[in-house]
Formats: sequence, C-alpha cells, structure tokens
Amino acid sequence: MSVRHLAVIGLGLIGGSLARALRAAGEVGRISGYDPDPVQRQQALKLGVIDEVHEQAPEAVADADLVVLAVPVLRTAEAYAACLPGLRPETVVSDVGSTKQSVLRDIAAVCGGQLPPRFVAAHPIAGTEKSGVANSQTELFRNHRVIITPHEHQDAAARQLVARLWQAIGARVVEMSPAQHDAIFAATSHLPHVLAYSFVDMLARLERSGEIFPNAGGGFRDFTRIASSSPQMWHDVLRANEAAVADLLDRQIEELQQIRRMMAESRWDELKALFERARAARERYLSQIE
Amino acid sequence: MSVRHLAVIGLGLIGGSLARALRAAGEVGRISGYDPDPVQRQQALKLGVIDEVHEQAPEAVADADLVVLAVPVLRTAEAYAACLPGLRPETVVSDVGSTKQSVLRDIAAVCGGQLPPRFVAAHPIAGTEKSGVANSQTELFRNHRVIITPHEHQDAAARQLVARLWQAIGARVVEMSPAQHDAIFAATSHLPHVLAYSFVDMLARLERSGEIFPNAGGGFRDFTRIASSSPQMWHDVLRANEAAVADLLDRQIEELQQIRRMMAESRWDELKALFERARAARERYLSQIE
Repeated sequence: MSVRHLAVIGLGLIGGSLARALRAAGEVGRISGYDPDPVQRQQALKLGVIDEVHEQAPEAVADADLVVLAVPVLRTAEAYAACLPGLRPETVVSDVGSTKQSVLRDIAAVCGGQLPPRFVAAHPIAGTEKSGVANSQTELFRNHRVIITPHEHQDAAARQLVARLWQAIGARVVEMSPAQHDAIFAATSHLPHVLAYSFVDMLARLERSGEIFPNAGGGFRDFTRIASSSPQMWHDVLRANEAAVADLLDRQIEELQQIRRMMAESRWDELKALFERARAARERYLSQIE
Repeated sequence: MSVRHLAVIGLGLIGGSLARALRAAGEVGRISGYDPDPVQRQQALKLGVIDEVHEQAPEAVADADLVVLAVPVLRTAEAYAACLPGLRPETVVSDVGSTKQSVLRDIAAVCGGQLPPRFVAAHPIAGTEKSGVANSQTELFRNHRVIITPHEHQDAAARQLVARLWQAIGARVVEMSPAQHDAIFAATSHLPHVLAYSFVDMLARLERSGEIFPNAGGGFRDFTRIASSSPQMWHDVLRANEAAVADLLDRQIEELQQIRRMMAESRWDELKALFERARAARERYLSQIE
C-alpha cells in the first residue's frame, strides 16, 4: 500500500474511476471524498467508491497523505484553496485537469505566487463522453497515457509517488513541459471537441434537422460522439487553453475555406490530393499507437 | 431464390459484401463479376465472393437477371453504358451510390435523356473506412438502412425486387426523393468526411505534428476514423453532390467563425450554451436510433 489515506475532491467520472482503480490495485487504505453536489457525494458513498464523505473540503483532506483534485480545470485552484485549511505540510496534492499551464498558474496565484513543492500536475488521457460518478470504471486508465508536467522546485518524491500510483493501475506515465502539453492536447482533443459540438449544433439549427438525424449512420455516430461530453468541462478547457485552441481554430477555418474554394473553382484533383494526404497521416498515426 | 443470375460490376467493399450476403441468404443462383482492377477481380474469385469473373463488363452481365453497379458514383453512368451491349431488356439494374440526383441524371444522359424503367437507384447506409473486396463482409448491411429513390416511369416490379433483396439480407428499406436523399446525406455523411479529412490534414501540416499523433487518445481515433476512407470515393461524392455540400460547408465555416468570435470576445456563456444545445441534439439523435 502506497497511500494510507487518499482524499478525492470532485466525485465525477475521473475522480470516481481513480478511487476505484487505486482501491482495486491495493494501493490505498482509506478513501475520503468531497463534492459540492450532494447527489454525487451520496452516489459515490453508496457505490462504495469512497469510504466516507464530507460536506466540506478541509474535513475530507484532513489527515490525507494524497489529495487528488478531480474538478473542472477552471475550479482546480479554487478547490486547492478550499482544501488549504485541512492540508498538512507533507500532503501530496495532484490534479487530473485537461490543461496544465492554467492550472499551474492558478495554483501559484492562490499560494502567494509560488507553486507548492508537493503539488504534482497530471493529466490522464482517458475518459468517455459520459459524466458523473455513476459512470466511473475501475479499468478506465489501463493502457492509457498519463502526462505529468513537472515544475521547478517540485519535490521529487511527490512526483514519483504520483507516477507510481498511475503505473500501478495500468497507465503509462509520460513527462513533458506544461506548454508542450497544452499545445499537443489543443490539437488532439480540444479542437476536435469544438468541431464536433459545432457540427452537431449547425445541423440541429437546420430546418430539416428532424429528417437528418434518423438517417445518420455509424460514421456519424463515431464522428459526433465527443459532442455528448460535458459542456461545463469543455467550456472550462477552452477558457483555460484559449490561445492554443484559438490558433488551431484559425488554421482549421482557413483550411475549410481553402476546400470551399477548391470546390467553387472545380479544383477536384487538389481536393483528392488533400484527402489522400489526410488518409496517409491517419494511417501513420494508427501505426504509431498500435 | 429471387435471382437466377446476379452480375456485380465493381468488386469492392460494397459489391463484394452484397454478393456475399445475397448468396448467404440463398437469394441468388450464379454470381458473375467484373472490375477494371485485375487484383480485385482475382481476389473476388479466390475468396469465393463471385463464381465467375470477366474481363469485360458486357460479358459479365450477359444473361443476368440483376446487375448491381457498385462503383464510385461518378463512374456509375459510364459503367451502365459499358454494360449496355450485354443487357437484355428485362434485366433489372441497380446501384449503391452515395448520391442519387447525379446518378439518375448521368444515367438518363447515357440513355438518350430518359431513365430506363428497370433502373432502380439505391443507397445502402453502411460501410467501413476500409476499402476493397478483401474487407467485404456478409453481415455489412444487417440492421442498416437502404434508401431507394424512385423515379417517374419506373417499373414497379423492378423496384420491388431490389427492395425485397435488401430486406432479405437484413436491411431496412426507406423510400425518399433523390433531392431529399442528397440533402440529408450531405449533412450526415458528406460534410463530416470533409471535416475529418480537413482536420487530420491541418494537423499533419503543423510543425509539431510528429509529437501530436502519438499523444492522441480514443476520442481522436473515433473522430478521425472516417478520414481513413477512400479518397477516390469521397472525391466523387463531393463532386456529385457539390451544391448541397457547399451550402453546408458555408454554414459550418460561419458557425466556426462565430465560435472564434465568442472566444475572442470572452463570451464564454454563449459558447457553453452552444455546447449544451449540441449535446442535447445528439442525445435526441441517440434516442431516435436506439
């Protein structure tokens, strides 16, 4: 057992799945939890995801060896600040947020401008379009990546503890800088969510949307799956990683305008060449992850 | 048995899967085939998808009761014209193209301006991102829709034969007008392919594309799956349904520009409301297809 007492702040899909996985791996003793939503709190307790629930964050983290903040990214620093009265100096605190520069900046701000040595910023690359502790799964992180973005003056033992726990539940830990993280995930995750939401919304606003959706096939279902994700979470991610997403969105709009011009000017061979480039790039991607 | 002799022109994923399914259902006697590509021809024969292969289309269709043109949409009329010398007056001809107005217009053009009464335009809403007869599957169409777009002066018995065969292999037949078909599938299928190809191509052109792809997760994989589809096929579909796709692409670009302005002007509540509308629309779609 690596952690005598784990506190999970934010009892949703990710916080719940992490608690389940660490318990199943025998890595934690007692698990306490807090969520601002009484429904999630009671469900987490009832499902046995946590051992005890608290109505205040400082009570949940009192005596904890490790605190995981599993809240929407924009609320991470606020959650950290709320826990502060209950934290011991030796408590390790980590997060699971989808952006990293903003989390580190915000936490430094609530800690007098300097990052606490025992704060470890982490991002598990896993999830489903479903939210809430009721959808949490023990195996959610197995064979998935977890990005840890170290910071200056970080306590090496704290970082190693967090890395070891993720590895113990089957995840693969990769380290990179916060800026590199945010640029990469703007491309692979944040922009695709914008495109999927935007596409479904555009269709829903069409006059004939009523006849469109019943005729959609399997390709449509996969392409739009991420548009069923939590609007609150993705609103937060976009705000937190605004610059990187805006840059890519500009490029995406520019590329779509180019395609539109190819169509208008009947430059069909160029369009086909673009499709071929894209297919080849995706085949390279598949060969890298398999 | 409904069809003594079936001829399949175009031995790819769809033509091959249809031949397999009709044989498995006991609906056809003998199956002959033709494809311009000798590799597909030999594979189809070797896999037992067809009983005999021909090096010329008229030979393949001679004596056939039903001919299915399973070629890229822009080649449908050309394939029809190539078969003409071998067709008997009573032979029913059908297709599987993803657009319908262009196919009907092009076939009328090679038939002296009038659609042949025994031509039945059909579109099975099934497929995978994989191409070629080697990927053909007996069960590809089960529980999928097939759209039939009737035309004036169509032979009712010909249409009924085609509908009955699709039903015999587990598909659900729906009739609608060619224009309605093309508008609906521009939205559910053609535009998503443009967006997926365009997104992957945009990423592949980034300087840091080498570090992006290895960090992509499951959401990315689903979102980009259709970008592995056949560039030739989708080039054809876009040309064949240009007006409907161009209209939707304009709307999509406009919506992305709106999102970009919301970000630039920090109108985050509007962005969240858009995400919420999209999620609600997708939930309605899921409830309709389940």
